[in-house]
Amino acid sequence: MPTHPSIPDLKTLKDIYQSQQTYTRVTPLIPCDELGEKVQGKVFVKAESLQKTGAFKFRGALYRLLQLSEQEKSRGVVAYSSGNFARGLAAAGEILGIDIHLVMPVDAPKNKIENARSHGAEIKLCHDSEPSREEAAATQAAQLAQQHGYSLLHPFDDEILIAGQSAVAVELSEQLEQLGETCHYLLCPTGGGSLVAGSSMVFNTSHYPDTRIIAIEPSGFDGMTLSIKEGYRTRANGRPTSSCDALQALSPGKANFAIVEDSEVTGLAVDEAFVNEGIRFAAQNLKLILEPSGAIGLGAMLQNPEKFRGKTTVVIVSGGNIDIEKYVDIIH
Amino acid sequence: MPTHPSIPDLKTLKDIYQSQQTYTRVTPLIPCDELGEKVQGKVFVKAESLQKTGAFKFRGALYRLLQLSEQEKSRGVVAYSSGNFARGLAAAGEILGIDIHLVMPVDAPKNKIENARSHGAEIKLCHDSEPSREEAAATQAAQLAQQHGYSLLHPFDDEILIAGQSAVAVELSEQLEQLGETCHYLLCPTGGGSLVAGSSMVFNTSHYPDTRIIAIEPSGFDGMTLSIKEGYRTRANGRPTSSCDALQALSPGKANFAIVEDSEVTGLAVDEAFVNEGIRFAAQNLKLILEPSGAIGLGAMLQNPEKFRGKTTVVIVSGGNIDIEKYVDIIH
Repeated sequence: MPTHPSIPDLKTLKDIYQSQQTYTRVTPLIPCDELGEKVQGKVFVKAESLQKTGAFKFRGALYRLLQLSEQEKSRGVVAYSSGNFARGLAAAGEILGIDIHLVMPVDAPKNKIENARSHGAEIKLCHDSEPSREEAAATQAAQLAQQHGYSLLHPFDDEILIAGQSAVAVELSEQLEQLGETCHYLLCPTGGGSLVAGSSMVFNTSHYPDTRIIAIEPSGFDGMTLSIKEGYRTRANGRPTSSCDALQALSPGKANFAIVEDSEVTGLAVDEAFVNEGIRFAAQNLKLILEPSGAIGLGAMLQNPEKFRGKTTVVIVSGGNIDIEKYVDIIH
Repeated sequence: MPTHPSIPDLKTLKDIYQSQQTYTRVTPLIPCDELGEKVQGKVFVKAESLQKTGAFKFRGALYRLLQLSEQEKSRGVVAYSSGNFARGLAAAGEILGIDIHLVMPVDAPKNKIENARSHGAEIKLCHDSEPSREEAAATQAAQLAQQHGYSLLHPFDDEILIAGQSAVAVELSEQLEQLGETCHYLLCPTGGGSLVAGSSMVFNTSHYPDTRIIAIEPSGFDGMTLSIKEGYRTRANGRPTSSCDALQALSPGKANFAIVEDSEVTGLAVDEAFVNEGIRFAAQNLKLILEPSGAIGLGAMLQNPEKFRGKTTVVIVSGGNIDIEKYVDIIH
């Protein structure tokens, strides 16, 4: 993996977006007046929770599969994922006729496991959590790849996947243009960093000099934020625990960090209480069901309203795949 | 009110839609694969729950206010409404600088009352429920109009308002065209009938010969369904009770029925249990929070899957304004 990956130009990123369009949905960019009033600015929500499979990950997973050789397609694919990449990959594999094998942590949300299975993927549940639940699952996936000759896909640390995820930002840039709106802050929920890296391919300072991207992470899992501050890839400590099951990578991906480092991205950690506030806010004001990882950008604004005062902010709400019992506990 | 109102042509309806566009949102048309599989057909959901104010009523309310004379605008407006028209009218009045006075039943959902008030409307709660909660509130609104010289607006029985509500169908027709999709059945939640009448202005048999509109009503409140069968305006008996607070008109509006009667609209009543199923289905599969009146079209498909077999069906989910406690009770 090169330290400084070559970043596709805007024309290429638009072509990548177009190549997915047969299968993906255009998700709405929804004005959020209530949050705008709170920060005395403008706020829009990019509702990727309404993407096919309930999360933005479908876009990158689909594009990654489209780039496999015919031989790789016929041998099948294996990946580990805490959930949304698994579900997206399973749905994309079903559409394209590619066998998908998944290793998922045993404590992944039930709806994510069941939905991945409903798309015909073969699923192994991983009971290990050392050194972390992600890394234990990654090891099992690598073993399966070696044993069976499957192509091993990484859920975030992969330049092709990242370019596929940039589709969210390409679509957003077109929607902003149609509305005649700028974007001062773009908030990207960040685990390993495929969304923030893909977004920074589009909204970097040479294309959009007025836009600053902020990687939004759960407190204790702010590996990207720490790495940006230090100037090298480092690791969060994973404490306290977080309900953001999709954002539990302790460290950003190599490719992801290299791409982000080239842009003027900053990071922001959000406390659990504000993640839950974000979920409740979306229910009350947007009528959207969000999972914790999807609501964290709203939580960031609710925790730091002064930071966004007088500006136009776009919050990517990245997913809505939450088990109903858990959801009821939060909004009740 | 004429028995056979003049129906604007498509060009005029498109102009009406355009005239609202500065203020209204384009709501997404979302494919619903899970329901499509269930009926072995195609299903799309037109998510008006994501419209400004959380319901389609904003479109008609805004257009109705835009059509007032300057003198009428300066005197202010009074209306009765169980909630979504109230909230839509309050928001539209705030935007256009028109004083809005509302009479709402005391048992209207709290979120609808509070949100209407937050847009600066003056609200009187009506405690009467004889002969029905709607009719008692209507009488109070008429008295206020007479006392204070306000323009009295009807929440559904008004040709201008209905033409304003047709914007949902105009937007839908453009989205279907973009997708290259037809629509065999269009399901419209129906109370007094402004959505179904507005939709039948667009999707009538001369413009869209392949489309049949179905007015969806709660069992016991199926005044439009009964009126269509009888061939004249008649009244449902209001039993059993229904949680669909926005669909409690016992009889369709005069103008609404006259417009619907000219098209080949049919009606379908949905039982309370399936309304709740619709709400749960939307939470699980669409990640949308719907109020009972908004989910009734999904309930209709879940109650009668065989009716939609092999066809392309569009379900308008008309609103999402439900009190959170009530929502939790249903999805729990």
